[in-house]
Amino acid sequence: MIIIMKSQATDTQIEKVINWIESVGYKAHPSRGVERTIIGAVGDNRDKAVLKYAESLPGVEKTMPILKPYKLASRESHEGNTIVSVGSIPIGGPEFVVMAGPCAIESEEQLLESAYIVKKGGAQILRGGAFKPRTSPYSFQGMEEEGLKIMDQVSQRTSLPTVTEVVNPLDVDLVETYADMLQIGARNIQNFALLKKVGHARKPVLLKRGMMTTIEELLMSAEYILSSGNPNVVLCERGIRTFETATRNTLDLSAVPVLKGLTHLPVVVDPSHAAGNWRFVIPLSRAAVAVGADGIIVEVHPEPEKAVSDGAQSLKPEKFYQLMDDVRAIAAAMRH
Amino acid sequence: MIIIMKSQATDTQIEKVINWIESVGYKAHPSRGVERTIIGAVGDNRDKAVLKYAESLPGVEKTMPILKPYKLASRESHEGNTIVSVGSIPIGGPEFVVMAGPCAIESEEQLLESAYIVKKGGAQILRGGAFKPRTSPYSFQGMEEEGLKIMDQVSQRTSLPTVTEVVNPLDVDLVETYADMLQIGARNIQNFALLKKVGHARKPVLLKRGMMTTIEELLMSAEYILSSGNPNVVLCERGIRTFETATRNTLDLSAVPVLKGLTHLPVVVDPSHAAGNWRFVIPLSRAAVAVGADGIIVEVHPEPEKAVSDGAQSLKPEKFYQLMDDVRAIAAAMRH
Amino acid sequence: MIIIMKSQATDTQIEKVINWIESVGYKAHPSRGVERTIIGAVGDNRDKAVLKYAESLPGVEKTMPILKPYKLASRESHEGNTIVSVGSIPIGGPEFVVMAGPCAIESEEQLLESAYIVKKGGAQILRGGAFKPRTSPYSFQGMEEEGLKIMDQVSQRTSLPTVTEVVNPLDVDLVETYADMLQIGARNIQNFALLKKVGHARKPVLLKRGMMTTIEELLMSAEYILSSGNPNVVLCERGIRTFETATRNTLDLSAVPVLKGLTHLPVVVDPSHAAGNWRFVIPLSRAAVAVGADGIIVEVHPEPEKAVSDGAQSLKPEKFYQLMDDVRAIAAAMRH
Amino acid sequence: MIIIMKSQATDTQIEKVINWIESVGYKAHPSRGVERTIIGAVGDNRDKAVLKYAESLPGVEKTMPILKPYKLASRESHEGNTIVSVGSIPIGGPEFVVMAGPCAIESEEQLLESAYIVKKGGAQILRGGAFKPRTSPYSFQGMEEEGLKIMDQVSQRTSLPTVTEVVNPLDVDLVETYADMLQIGARNIQNFALLKKVGHARKPVLLKRGMMTTIEELLMSAEYILSSGNPNVVLCERGIRTFETATRNTLDLSAVPVLKGLTHLPVVVDPSHAAGNWRFVIPLSRAAVAVGADGIIVEVHPEPEKAVSDGAQSLKPEKFYQLMDDVRAIAAAMRH
Repeated sequence: MIIIMKSQATDTQIEKVINWIESVGYKAHPSRGVERTIIGAVGDNRDKAVLKYAESLPGVEKTMPILKPYKLASRESHEGNTIVSVGSIPIGGPEFVVMAGPCAIESEEQLLESAYIVKKGGAQILRGGAFKPRTSPYSFQGMEEEGLKIMDQVSQRTSLPTVTEVVNPLDVDLVETYADMLQIGARNIQNFALLKKVGHARKPVLLKRGMMTTIEELLMSAEYILSSGNPNVVLCERGIRTFETATRNTLDLSAVPVLKGLTHLPVVVDPSHAAGNWRFVIPLSRAAVAVGADGIIVEVHPEPEKAVSDGAQSLKPEKFYQLMDDVRAIAAAMRH
Repeated sequence: MIIIMKSQATDTQIEKVINWIESVGYKAHPSRGVERTIIGAVGDNRDKAVLKYAESLPGVEKTMPILKPYKLASRESHEGNTIVSVGSIPIGGPEFVVMAGPCAIESEEQLLESAYIVKKGGAQILRGGAFKPRTSPYSFQGMEEEGLKIMDQVSQRTSLPTVTEVVNPLDVDLVETYADMLQIGARNIQNFALLKKVGHARKPVLLKRGMMTTIEELLMSAEYILSSGNPNVVLCERGIRTFETATRNTLDLSAVPVLKGLTHLPVVVDPSHAAGNWRFVIPLSRAAVAVGADGIIVEVHPEPEKAVSDGAQSLKPEKFYQLMDDVRAIAAAMRH
Repeated sequence: MIIIMKSQATDTQIEKVINWIESVGYKAHPSRGVERTIIGAVGDNRDKAVLKYAESLPGVEKTMPILKPYKLASRESHEGNTIVSVGSIPIGGPEFVVMAGPCAIESEEQLLESAYIVKKGGAQILRGGAFKPRTSPYSFQGMEEEGLKIMDQVSQRTSLPTVTEVVNPLDVDLVETYADMLQIGARNIQNFALLKKVGHARKPVLLKRGMMTTIEELLMSAEYILSSGNPNVVLCERGIRTFETATRNTLDLSAVPVLKGLTHLPVVVDPSHAAGNWRFVIPLSRAAVAVGADGIIVEVHPEPEKAVSDGAQSLKPEKFYQLMDDVRAIAAAMRH
Repeated sequence: MIIIMKSQATDTQIEKVINWIESVGYKAHPSRGVERTIIGAVGDNRDKAVLKYAESLPGVEKTMPILKPYKLASRESHEGNTIVSVGSIPIGGPEFVVMAGPCAIESEEQLLESAYIVKKGGAQILRGGAFKPRTSPYSFQGMEEEGLKIMDQVSQRTSLPTVTEVVNPLDVDLVETYADMLQIGARNIQNFALLKKVGHARKPVLLKRGMMTTIEELLMSAEYILSSGNPNVVLCERGIRTFETATRNTLDLSAVPVLKGLTHLPVVVDPSHAAGNWRFVIPLSRAAVAVGADGIIVEVHPEPEKAVSDGAQSLKPEKFYQLMDDVRAIAAAMRH
């Protein structure tokens, strides 16, 4: 942490800041410049957040943190790229991975039909929601355990590993028995009780960036899971909230190369929830490959016009096959 | 829901939209204008979200919801203003209510000293965190049950009712036995498992707007609690995330009169978390009274320089007394 | 500027950064910490922006500016508060100033009637637009010079000084001959050609913050005017663009105390354009007084239902009188 | 425009709204539903903005515009895609176009060297700024007319057509005599005086979306140019301002397919200004091709470490050649 003094700060004020820094267990390294003094605070015997208080001391202009607040998630902590295996499918390696399926599990027929489409298109992982976090208490909340059982059966029949969302710490053990990967949704990105719980799970975690979450906060949420003992975290960009309303959220594709620079964890993209409209899912999927993501997760439904949720952003089978063709072409061009 | 057709939409396309609307259980009311046709979809036998799919039908330009998605939280559903009692203190009535105390409960001495300051200043409710949702897993996470017990003892010694945060559905029953009001923090505003659980509690709920939550979504989260059976919800504006970084968040004071128009629930303001700096807490508290809020919740600490969290935004005792004087003066002027 | 090296940066990399800093005319002050080296770059023989390039050098993690980029606008450069006189009305002194009038000048009758209402209510300055920046080329663009002449006549008959917007550098001389204060609108906050031109005018300038302008950028735009020779700048907060759509923009009232800490210039608030709805103008005006603004600028129209622009946010006469009563009551309470 | 009445609106209130609609020159089409009445207002003898006032009438809940506010820019107004020629280079046709060059023109040597790099890499248009809109009045403001002359000479020697920014209506005629395309920068997107002026120019216009500009507003700004008589407008996505600070702005690549659906005008992407760091320019350029843009505009500098502006986001020659290879590979894959 660097503490920047005001240009008119007196020697007494500087002295008091140094004393305060040392009173909370840090070493102070003052550096007197032409225009102002800056003071470094070094040490880590205690949470750094406490140093922000320095902004309240007389003569202080502001404080600036200089170290990254995450450790296990950082590139510095880990040589090479982490590869996370979902069933037999590695995410983060040379192969671009497509996770696809319906927003919500509605019935065995619907999920089985979806899975055949997913498989026929060449995607590797089946998605489907059994616990649905919905903005309205009056919307369909998911088939819950019954949905998990359906997903498990469909997975066995099609040999597709599965990913599904968990929303309550109480349900983590249950979901883990049925699914190959646990998804933490955008709304739970800072539900720390849930993060700690999946940090103790043995299955990998798909961690979706929240609509309001900075890239640094996303990595801090990953850090919760990693520091609880689960090293298998896949990060997912799914759109952030901005002033623009032409799309449901604004897909932040720049986050992919930014994350690739900061962390060793795999990064995938969810264009369906960001766009909110199937028409934009194909171009955004192509862009996700081109920008360097390790995979995508998209919504496919055999009959979107009958979907109980997110029909507008779900691809019909033929559009999904077109998406897969496009994705393969761009992925091949990436290896040029 | 209104469905707006493109100007070049054909009669066949219009017909197909009408048929689809009726196939999902709604009545279609087409209206042919000079430039384009619009179609109303009326009915409520099923979640309205399904109608958004119409945007995927040929010839459709867009869909526009016209009904508010919340019911119990709306002004239409409830005559007059709801008054929520926290212990013996009514929120939402003629009296402006101040909730104050430290960010985190650190020890019995610290909380007791804080409570005496709160009481001396004339505030009515004591705040203090026992379960702390922290961005970093390495930051202090709260004293948990021990903190709750301290709060309960201090409450009894000072006769101040208390409000404290709950972050895990598993802890709701425990927190409820010690505190007079349960706080849902900004990061849990769409933690629906937690909202349903406090919806079954007998204690009132202080529901904080998330950093990226629209006013409509805030009311939908309140609807989760109300529709689960708990009618005692107080809404809290605490700053939204914007591009401006001079303050930690941007306090959206306009939300107060907007909410007053839409809902019967009381509305309070948290200037401490929005500003992130004690210097702005006093002017923003005055503004909260002037804009028509029912109360504020502010952070006070006997020694902010030693606080384990949020020291930079905590008021020292003398500043807090000045805040209380200011608040009383503006509240009196509001009755001019 | 501080340059922070990566933790694994080699001595050679550090050396090269130091050499580069000196090659562009700065002095380098390296400071080797436990975890990483930071290097201060001191000097001001050239624009500091050039130093940002250091982020491209091997081994550099990031650069952090530590000096404020504005000088003349800063508190450090000027003792006490600047008072800007508009005609005979001082802004920035002990008196709270209200500027009021119609969005657009529509006719002599309309402006004269508005001016009588403004005067009767006790406001001190008349506003009215002759050049209107409109999102649509098909919307009314203002009465231009004819409108300026009407404003001048009404000003003389009512002894109210006037403020009006200028949108083209070519019109500055013209507007200056008729108006007592030149307004730079939110959309022109970074129209630097226009800022330089009003920087050479002899009339004071009302500088409105843009919808996406940071507080620092607002002060940089003021710096353009100040550094061109015009010391009379009044800053105006008028709402920023956020994800929230319940109001047209989000009024950032926190900006008032933040600006008061950073600059000696007066700060006023425009609640009409921020809210976009007259219902919120009165509570937000009260809040503007309470938060410490030097004045407000509000839209009043004798018959809003006939206004050619912004009717929805214009106050009717009786509502305006109520606003003035409220403002006076809060302003009195502020002197308690 | 649709006017939605409150559910409790009385017949008298509905009657008054209908009368008001007709008093301002529109026809009213009421439609009484089960829960509430909605009223369509049809006609176009006057600016539609006036209808927003209806929100102030008793019994009205809100107004909703249903027609797009732009005409000439819309897909409905124009069959097929517009192709804009810059010198001999068509933008909007089958060929992906790269515009490249330094941020600012610094000298003849610098621009000539840049142009050779641009040409060698295979880009088709040379960019370079002579009038620089800078946040700080103390930063380099460009070589102005001298820079334009240099650009003209370099263009003749290399046969590369040129694009350069114009910031003042007074300079449009001058810039037009030297450059092949006029750029309107992000900060001038709603500088309507400037838009009207380039609307009368004979050269094509590159219109950059502002940091704060919605897609609809971008199209309205294009409408200013088109309706002034200049049909040759190329739209440019260059990043919007959001809460995320890891990149300078957030590149909104979704805007490309959204715009392609709404307008016939070509759409290009500027990844350099969005990212603010050269490391992200290559992946974002690939993504721009993959998402369906017609071209990109990127910053290249022979020696970024000596650039007077934007050095951090400028590509070195070898990185630029790599970008061109990548762009060609993805463009080829798009034709698979």
